[in-house]
Amino acid sequence: MSVKGFLSAAVAADLRYHGRPDLGLILAEAPCSWAGLFTQSVCRAAPVIWSRDRAAAGLGRAFLANSGQANAQTGAEGELNCRRSAELVGGAAGCAPEEVMLASTGVIGPQLNMKALAPAVPRLVAALGPDRLDDFARAILTTDTRPKTAGESFDLGGRRVTVWGCAKGSGMIAPHLATMLGFLLTDARLEPGLLRAILAEGAELSFNRVTVDGDTSTNDSLMIMASGASGAPEIRSGEALEKFRLAAFTVMKSLARQIARDGEGATKLVTVRLRGAASEEEAKKAARTVAESPLVKTAFFGQDANWGRICMALGRSGAVFDPYAVDIDLDQVPWIRNGLDNGREEAATAVMKKPEYVLDINLNAGPHGCEMLTCDYSHDYISINGSYRS
Amino acid sequence: MSVKGFLSAAVAADLRYHGRPDLGLILAEAPCSWAGLFTQSVCRAAPVIWSRDRAAAGLGRAFLANSGQANAQTGAEGELNCRRSAELVGGAAGCAPEEVMLASTGVIGPQLNMKALAPAVPRLVAALGPDRLDDFARAILTTDTRPKTAGESFDLGGRRVTVWGCAKGSGMIAPHLATMLGFLLTDARLEPGLLRAILAEGAELSFNRVTVDGDTSTNDSLMIMASGASGAPEIRSGEALEKFRLAAFTVMKSLARQIARDGEGATKLVTVRLRGAASEEEAKKAARTVAESPLVKTAFFGQDANWGRICMALGRSGAVFDPYAVDIDLDQVPWIRNGLDNGREEAATAVMKKPEYVLDINLNAGPHGCEMLTCDYSHDYISINGSYRS
Repeated sequence: MSVKGFLSAAVAADLRYHGRPDLGLILAEAPCSWAGLFTQSVCRAAPVIWSRDRAAAGLGRAFLANSGQANAQTGAEGELNCRRSAELVGGAAGCAPEEVMLASTGVIGPQLNMKALAPAVPRLVAALGPDRLDDFARAILTTDTRPKTAGESFDLGGRRVTVWGCAKGSGMIAPHLATMLGFLLTDARLEPGLLRAILAEGAELSFNRVTVDGDTSTNDSLMIMASGASGAPEIRSGEALEKFRLAAFTVMKSLARQIARDGEGATKLVTVRLRGAASEEEAKKAARTVAESPLVKTAFFGQDANWGRICMALGRSGAVFDPYAVDIDLDQVPWIRNGLDNGREEAATAVMKKPEYVLDINLNAGPHGCEMLTCDYSHDYISINGSYRS
Repeated sequence: MSVKGFLSAAVAADLRYHGRPDLGLILAEAPCSWAGLFTQSVCRAAPVIWSRDRAAAGLGRAFLANSGQANAQTGAEGELNCRRSAELVGGAAGCAPEEVMLASTGVIGPQLNMKALAPAVPRLVAALGPDRLDDFARAILTTDTRPKTAGESFDLGGRRVTVWGCAKGSGMIAPHLATMLGFLLTDARLEPGLLRAILAEGAELSFNRVTVDGDTSTNDSLMIMASGASGAPEIRSGEALEKFRLAAFTVMKSLARQIARDGEGATKLVTVRLRGAASEEEAKKAARTVAESPLVKTAFFGQDANWGRICMALGRSGAVFDPYAVDIDLDQVPWIRNGLDNGREEAATAVMKKPEYVLDINLNAGPHGCEMLTCDYSHDYISINGSYRS
């Protein structure tokens, strides 16, 4: 995969993992518009602190990302290691350190392994090529079982414009900024302010609608660069902007979906479609409470059409509704009507045996809705997280 | 076990479980003060609706409790079955139906098995005796692995006064009203209003400080009856009230602790002691976010002294603090100082191998604190909840 105006590469730097790519670089051939969104946690990792400041400048050249070490709760030394990392990239690639955004994912606490990182950066720059975005996408993974990438193209002013993205997710995925690293590239030309607005709007429709375990990390970052190398005219408004938004949102939604499907140990991908809430706030609360309830998520795993657990989650969500007005469909099966079992348990159970389905809840209390993607809690979630560091 | 003025019994009614006690009755020998606290869920089970109205009257005679069926989301028929159950008890025991509070725990949705319940009630009344509170305590269990009872006594006016309680917990334990059934008895004499105030205050210090999975049920109920049969003077204020409060709070705290220790599949009992928050609200939020975080709870299970996960939970909790001012002790081990690892990981890991320990977090941001009891997420949590109904 390639996007015009960008080179990329990945190497095994052996920061913490051994013998697998754990360090990736994307380099724009010339300075270009960029933007970023970052975790809302009070405990921000050093690369988040670094990149938030850089993103504000609006122009830059490179994304450097590593897996295995989060460089979070690492204090002044952690921040210094960010500067040194950016300087290493700048020195080898011929750009200013301030033109490098950083992202890390992995264990919180330990200092970045600079002894391993320093010699790896020149190798990384030497390996840069136009067709290695998939390598980058693999280098950012931790407990993910597969890389997550998506791309969309459209025609603009006689040129082909592409939006591409990759992400890592797995645990700590929650709807604040869904915890993850995400990187978007486009060869369209846009102003940084517009890029940031589209990124924020798209995140709200995609990553902020995904939950794996309700936890949010110290390292959440979503970044975008626009090279303009497609040669298409600058996108400002009108139909061109609509086309770009559609492409960008499609990419972000696809990545969010891949994150939910690959939740740690997940065997099910469930869309919680909440309708009929009295307010938007209540719709979000109700959808999120169902999507994050451990008892609902274990019932998904157990393939158990257990209305009681959904009722329990809705009841404590803060939404106001009449429990005897609730209708629920599982895919097309009218499972619950007026808060009571509709005699379709066998068909409902058959839906729950599918790897992917829609849980459509209508509170019948108003016009507001919210959709969330979630997955189940399996034995493997416990296994993975009981021993993640070891 | 016995408390003066009360008879009790349990039988196997085979409502849903077979061949084990699933129906319990406590009968006061004469009308006495009572009070109740109930779930804050919008979806209230039929027995909760019934008992809340009865509790308001302030005087009553009996608690009837069953396990296996929740009688929740059962509509008008569910409410009618409550009335019929109370009438059955009233008819057999010689009291008014309105003098019977009801509590149910189990699967949500199905109607109460009245065919099994109706013939069981006369057997239950026939079995009543002064020494069968432990039988009652066993009849209310679902996935609990052991009964939970506690008792305290003190001298008042030359008489011995007793407070006794039993509870069932396991899953759906969260700090709203910690989801559970709880029954308290005393042979002291108190006005219903005072009884209710003590119940509410005690719940805030005990059951509302316990979390197993952050879920809250449709059936949470905590009830108390005071027979006055000890012969001690009525408790109104002063030293007598202090003695009673102390005894009642001790019983409630013990039951809450037993609930946390017996959380579904739990292998660890962890006290999260949060100190140094800027406000009481932030202290509660921070303690609760740590105590409920799935990633923290799986780390407890994995016996992994992983500061990163606690940092992550604190960071997203809504509390405001400097991440580099945080101190954390595991029992007496000074594990984290100023947000950084204090070089005591081996000792910290040794604490986490214990079945029970204190996680003492000081945000160093103010004078407020909050303590919560929690447990770990184990493979068994998933097994139990993936197949609870089957």
